Amino acid sequence: MIVVLSGGVGGARLVDGLARVVRRDRLVVVANSGDDLWHWGLRVCPDLDTLTYTLAGRADPTRGWGRADERFLALETAKELGGDDWFAIGDRDLGLHVTRTAWLRDGAPLSEVTRRVCAAFGVGPTLLPASETPWETRIRTDDGELSFQEWLVRRRAPPARAIRFEGDGAPPTAVLDALDAAELVVFPPSNPFVSIDPILALPGVRERVAARPVVAVSPLVGGRAVKGPLAENLRDLVCDPARPLSEQLVPSIIVDHYAGLVDRFVYERGDPAPVGVPSLATGTVMNDVADRVRLAREVLAFAGVDP
Amino acid sequence: MIVVLSGGVGGARLVDGLARVVRRDRLVVVANSGDDLWHWGLRVCPDLDTLTYTLAGRADPTRGWGRADERFLALETAKELGGDDWFAIGDRDLGLHVTRTAWLRDGAPLSEVTRRVCAAFGVGPTLLPASETPWETRIRTDDGELSFQEWLVRRRAPPARAIRFEGDGAPPTAVLDALDAAELVVFPPSNPFVSIDPILALPGVRERVAARPVVAVSPLVGGRAVKGPLAENLRDLVCDPARPLSEQLVPSIIVDHYAGLVDRFVYERGDPAPVGVPSLATGTVMNDVADRVRLAREVLAFAGVDP
Repeated sequence: MIVVLSGGVGGARLVDGLARVVRRDRLVVVANSGDDLWHWGLRVCPDLDTLTYTLAGRADPTRGWGRADERFLALETAKELGGDDWFAIGDRDLGLHVTRTAWLRDGAPLSEVTRRVCAAFGVGPTLLPASETPWETRIRTDDGELSFQEWLVRRRAPPARAIRFEGDGAPPTAVLDALDAAELVVFPPSNPFVSIDPILALPGVRERVAARPVVAVSPLVGGRAVKGPLAENLRDLVCDPARPLSEQLVPSIIVDHYAGLVDRFVYERGDPAPVGVPSLATGTVMNDVADRVRLAREVLAFAGVDP
Repeated sequence: MIVVLSGGVGGARLVDGLARVVRRDRLVVVANSGDDLWHWGLRVCPDLDTLTYTLAGRADPTRGWGRADERFLALETAKELGGDDWFAIGDRDLGLHVTRTAWLRDGAPLSEVTRRVCAAFGVGPTLLPASETPWETRIRTDDGELSFQEWLVRRRAPPARAIRFEGDGAPPTAVLDALDAAELVVFPPSNPFVSIDPILALPGVRERVAARPVVAVSPLVGGRAVKGPLAENLRDLVCDPARPLSEQLVPSIIVDHYAGLVDRFVYERGDPAPVGVPSLATGTVMNDVADRVRLAREVLAFAGVDP
């Protein structure tokens, strides 16, 4: 079994590559639940849905979230009425949130809801939410603590002073079973603080991951994240203000963050090699499907695992 | 003040005509709340919304419900997922339900929510929900009791054996005040059982209406309703099965239903005149705006009230 712990966009791209090269019954994808929120009275799971849409071939090819061929008529009405319009939900996407919320209210666990959605949309690999129950990433800022989406979308990522996870998060049994059976655990190029850490912090996850071979792909490319607030998180939470940032925003800061959990590391060709871990320099930016497939193959080969 | 008690389509058409001829500060429209429902976790008010969209010039011109230039992408997704798809909600429409539900959850009364919506959409006359609180039309059938929408839409109107209203319905103060100040109360061509009766049954309404001049427009045309299940309601709830239906489905059955409440009656030219009430025969089918305006003028003139 190959188990991927993933956030949204960057993670979803590598997951898509893996799904195209790994036998579907050998691939389990665990989606970060820390970004989930109640919005418009509905349960919205941004990372899970980005993974679902990507694996179903229904993701918007450029936006990085939501569905292709999407419209925003409901949002347009909400905006016109002076309603809550800070978090953009498309109309097709809304149909999923409405259905999921109804199923959750009927008592179905989120993993079962996800199973139904994946079956209806024709998703091949097993996709699981990291937590059945709310397990929320909370970001402390100078203006108080915010949920992840409030912080990122509504407030446009003011400096993060600390990050914690709130709730009585409970990984689905299937997540723990998959980790127990994992030949390899993959950390795709997702944000360690707000995509991977929330999964690792769930009861029973970190120790299982530590017992398995882990390969991570660096989410830093030339000192920046391809997408999202990672560089700012590193600057605000980890870096030494007395030293130049450019020296610090290098692959080793990611390896160090995972503190011994990572056995092999893949990073962008041209960036300084991390020390203390076997590493592979290659092209990690995935602009198209060919990139996703190539990187997936390279990661597996480097980890010594057959697809 | 001219106060109209209205259901959806038929009522909305005459209300639109009245809104085009009556000074906006003299017209108060009270929307039936008996059809309201929780659907997709959202508060949906079909008659109120049909009136809102009609008065805002945003109603679909042919469907009789919902907005013009509407799409159904959320519903399409729900259907594909195997979710709840028996009640059609369009994407633009959904934006209203989402916003209304959020405002209601924040504690705003439905009348205040309606005021905000009307202000944003540029609705001229005062539009009020009949009840601030749930006041649900319940229809007893041979298969048990159903909510109005379950009965009409989901089950396609099986024979109604009895109708009652459930909840602790409370008309907004503004409804009672408007009735106290009413120079004329208008019953447009709405279904008496499921559109007008639920309003009349609210505390304080029937006695106020009885104290005012009331003009009603017959919803029966040639023994049928222009739209909706009225003829079936009359057949199942009122008519004598031993007598031919065609003899019974005539304007007087509507007058009789209102039991002395109606002072003047407008009915379709060619139908048999009702007895015991001053009446006006004219064209009551409103195919276009010109029909709506003409009928509104005729109703007011017949009632002896200036616009």
